[in-house]
Amino acid sequence: MKKKAMEDKAQIQEAIKVQGEVVRKLKAEKASREQIDEEVSKLLQLKAQLGGDDGKNQFVLKTPKGTRDYNPKQMAIREKVFNTIVGCFKRHGAETIDTPVFELKETLTGKYGEDSKLIYDLKDQGGELLALRYDLTVPFARYLAMNKITNIKRYHIAKVYRRDNPAMTRGRYREFYQCDFDIAGQYDAMIPDAECLKIVHEILSELDLGDFRIKVNDRRILDGMFAVCGVPDDKFRTICSTVDKLDKMPWEEVKKEMVNEKGLSEEAADQIGEYVSMQGGMDLAERLLQDQKMSQSKLACAGLSDIKLLFTYLQLFQVTDKVVFDLSLARGLDYYTGIIYEAVLTQAGVAPVTTEAQNGAAAEESVSVGSVAGGGRYDGLVGMFDPKGRKVPCVGVSIGIERVFSIMEQKAEASTEKIRTTEVQIMVASAQKNLLEEKLKLVTELWNAGIKAEVMYKKNPKLLSQLQHCEESGIPLVAILGEQELKDGVVKLRVVATREEVDISRAALIDEVWRRTSAA
Amino acid sequence: MKKKAMEDKAQIQEAIKVQGEVVRKLKAEKASREQIDEEVSKLLQLKAQLGGDDGKNQFVLKTPKGTRDYNPKQMAIREKVFNTIVGCFKRHGAETIDTPVFELKETLTGKYGEDSKLIYDLKDQGGELLALRYDLTVPFARYLAMNKITNIKRYHIAKVYRRDNPAMTRGRYREFYQCDFDIAGQYDAMIPDAECLKIVHEILSELDLGDFRIKVNDRRILDGMFAVCGVPDDKFRTICSTVDKLDKMPWEEVKKEMVNEKGLSEEAADQIGEYVSMQGGMDLAERLLQDQKMSQSKLACAGLSDIKLLFTYLQLFQVTDKVVFDLSLARGLDYYTGIIYEAVLTQAGVAPVTTEAQNGAAAEESVSVGSVAGGGRYDGLVGMFDPKGRKVPCVGVSIGIERVFSIMEQKAEASTEKIRTTEVQIMVASAQKNLLEEKLKLVTELWNAGIKAEVMYKKNPKLLSQLQHCEESGIPLVAILGEQELKDGVVKLRVVATREEVDISRAALIDEVWRRTSAA
Repeated sequence: MKKKAMEDKAQIQEAIKVQGEVVRKLKAEKASREQIDEEVSKLLQLKAQLGGDDGKNQFVLKTPKGTRDYNPKQMAIREKVFNTIVGCFKRHGAETIDTPVFELKETLTGKYGEDSKLIYDLKDQGGELLALRYDLTVPFARYLAMNKITNIKRYHIAKVYRRDNPAMTRGRYREFYQCDFDIAGQYDAMIPDAECLKIVHEILSELDLGDFRIKVNDRRILDGMFAVCGVPDDKFRTICSTVDKLDKMPWEEVKKEMVNEKGLSEEAADQIGEYVSMQGGMDLAERLLQDQKMSQSKLACAGLSDIKLLFTYLQLFQVTDKVVFDLSLARGLDYYTGIIYEAVLTQAGVAPVTTEAQNGAAAEESVSVGSVAGGGRYDGLVGMFDPKGRKVPCVGVSIGIERVFSIMEQKAEASTEKIRTTEVQIMVASAQKNLLEEKLKLVTELWNAGIKAEVMYKKNPKLLSQLQHCEESGIPLVAILGEQELKDGVVKLRVVATREEVDISRAALIDEVWRRTSAA
Repeated sequence: MKKKAMEDKAQIQEAIKVQGEVVRKLKAEKASREQIDEEVSKLLQLKAQLGGDDGKNQFVLKTPKGTRDYNPKQMAIREKVFNTIVGCFKRHGAETIDTPVFELKETLTGKYGEDSKLIYDLKDQGGELLALRYDLTVPFARYLAMNKITNIKRYHIAKVYRRDNPAMTRGRYREFYQCDFDIAGQYDAMIPDAECLKIVHEILSELDLGDFRIKVNDRRILDGMFAVCGVPDDKFRTICSTVDKLDKMPWEEVKKEMVNEKGLSEEAADQIGEYVSMQGGMDLAERLLQDQKMSQSKLACAGLSDIKLLFTYLQLFQVTDKVVFDLSLARGLDYYTGIIYEAVLTQAGVAPVTTEAQNGAAAEESVSVGSVAGGGRYDGLVGMFDPKGRKVPCVGVSIGIERVFSIMEQKAEASTEKIRTTEVQIMVASAQKNLLEEKLKLVTELWNAGIKAEVMYKKNPKLLSQLQHCEESGIPLVAILGEQELKDGVVKLRVVATREEVDISRAALIDEVWRRTSAA
């Protein structure tokens, strides 16, 4: 045993030497701060493993980079937000499924374009090659293909993983929740698509995050536009990625990237520039259908007709007040094939815009648009998994829940209202000593009747400390036991807020507690 | 792009060659079937990556080994079980927290004894060294130490990961849920410990899984027993591991392991054998306190006195009917320091005992005891994380929820009652064509009033297919629109179960739907 420990120690010391070299080299090469930080963190971990000079283990007490714990207050907020969102999904008749947190590596390969480098791989420990899921959409498509499901309306709330540069003060993490709602199946055009937007509208209204706008576009309109502006076929996706940056960069810079980096002609770029500045509603779709250039593309016309139809349904759903047809919306992911959308909060200052994230994030991150939901149609993804390539058309939306948590947490901090982290209705207490057994009997009666109740884990706690606990955790009632009460077959029921006290017979206590806490 | 693809292909072909060699070698060496299966699976993945001869990508459509998807029916069962468990945790005043799915590797190191080899590591992609959590207890201890929390009562429901040999037909997976309830803090002896057992009793009773028994023991009694039986100090932990196998192996085999593998004297083993056959209640604890040999150990006496105290509290909690003091209970994990317990289902045949798991599991796995909950006191774990070694006493229980799911799923399959996977109250339908817009208007009214409602995503669906959908998914009501109804300002409300139809005015519809579905 001791010999092994010494060998381990020698191994760690060797690893520290190697890692020290790595750090020195990176510093000499003036590598990015990000990269150096990561390697230094690794070095510190190794050193901690070895233990300090005093022989004690010195742990680095932290969660992994880009992740966080949720404390009980944050969990209470999270539960409230989830209840709102799940309530909406259920109102629209969705079922729910769950998939493993990791997938076979190859299931994720080739689905995310440039973002694939952000996937977390598991170590090869002598089994299958695995990776943590990057979103819930690809696992959903895998699930449909694997089970040969051709229509389903499902929601899925779970954590996903991206090795991104975290900006945690703004609610961007490496481990974060996604709340997805998707409709799979061969249906008539734009009906499920419109319902997805209705759902975004309902959720954002109900969460009360301030004013918002839902931008809508269609990949076919973008591709048609690229075609009529003279973008070569093989540059559609890369130019689309550049257009996607319009929410973070001014047009002049986007144009520069198109011309200088992507090799587009200045003329083509200018034509694109004209289109992507357009915003409107059904009227804009009608105008573009008449547009001399745009109308040359069948693809664009199909997209524009569907936008028109979409707005018809959105009117019936009473949500057109927030929806805008915006030709600059592109969305990053590869798999979209039709309509795409994104919801942004428009109220300035509602989100924190600390520019200095803990890892010294770039300044561009402060240019925030507050995207809180996004999605679109992806008719080809399931077919990528089916051995015979059978397609299942899908459309869905993902709620950017971490962002919502951040805002709700700020609101809660700013508010004077106290957040309860438990739902305890009553505390069983005593002023006198040696009543533990009687208290345990009473709390058992309450628990057995389904009442949420607590008793202190001390034989003889002070009454004051029992009452303080109630104040701190918002417990509204106290049942106080004493020799006299036991003799009389009653308990003294105290209302914490008013300090009012009243004797209640043991037989009537349970009904009385329900009566006084039924609002809770 | 094309050149890169060709290079990738060559690389994969090379990898296939190497992997093929690995498999051939293992087969030649007559390696375990398990090991060969794993390497073959890797080979198949590589081949699939390359694509078949027809040039199409051929994915292996599966979830990783030892994991599963949950379909909507399974999720409905899961939700019900979680509601019961969370309801109990909340009744006892617990808060909840959440921690990341992975931790720094070193956080997990040295906490699980022999089981550490089952930890999933993440690949080193140039950042911190990470591993998937193995349980929720160690992350909880890390959370307490990191935030300097000295008392909390919390529950945590989340997935944990173990690279174990899965026996999925019996509810044993590599990814599985744990439902943990723990009480941290310096309190009077056995009060929180007894509440943990009360909680197990409440949950197992409420889940209605059949009869159960909660075995209780104390690590101090085990250690004292080992001492008085002449086990050398440095063999306590390893002999304890062997005792832990008593629920899977007969005493004779356990004794053989102690003597032949662990080098214990036959005499010492026989003395242990006498003690570990003992079961009882408070009386047994009293008897052992008088036992000539056992009473020589102060440690054992401390444990036995606490068992007595525990039973006093369990009587007040009205749960002694199911609790038995059992000296053979040892529990695997290293970190327990005091009381330990485990709940088992005693009804034969309630759990599936398929011996042939999909990976050809060993026959020993069929000897099942149906453990569905376990836990104990771990007073040293938080101190392992604290830089100054400050201790926070903890006691907790973990519900073996996957096992419970398996049993509930079987019950559901055996039952004739249909499980609903949605909560839809009403479907908006029509018998005539061209009423999509009117249906969308009506469903919007219902949604806006908070009613769970659906409409088909087709312009002109057949009435029959609309009614069939209601039957299949258990939707109780249909609102049927037609030209006449629109003229009269009514809808035809149809009760799916009875086929009864009645005209309701549009103004009264929402109240009527609530009235008829308020039980749901």
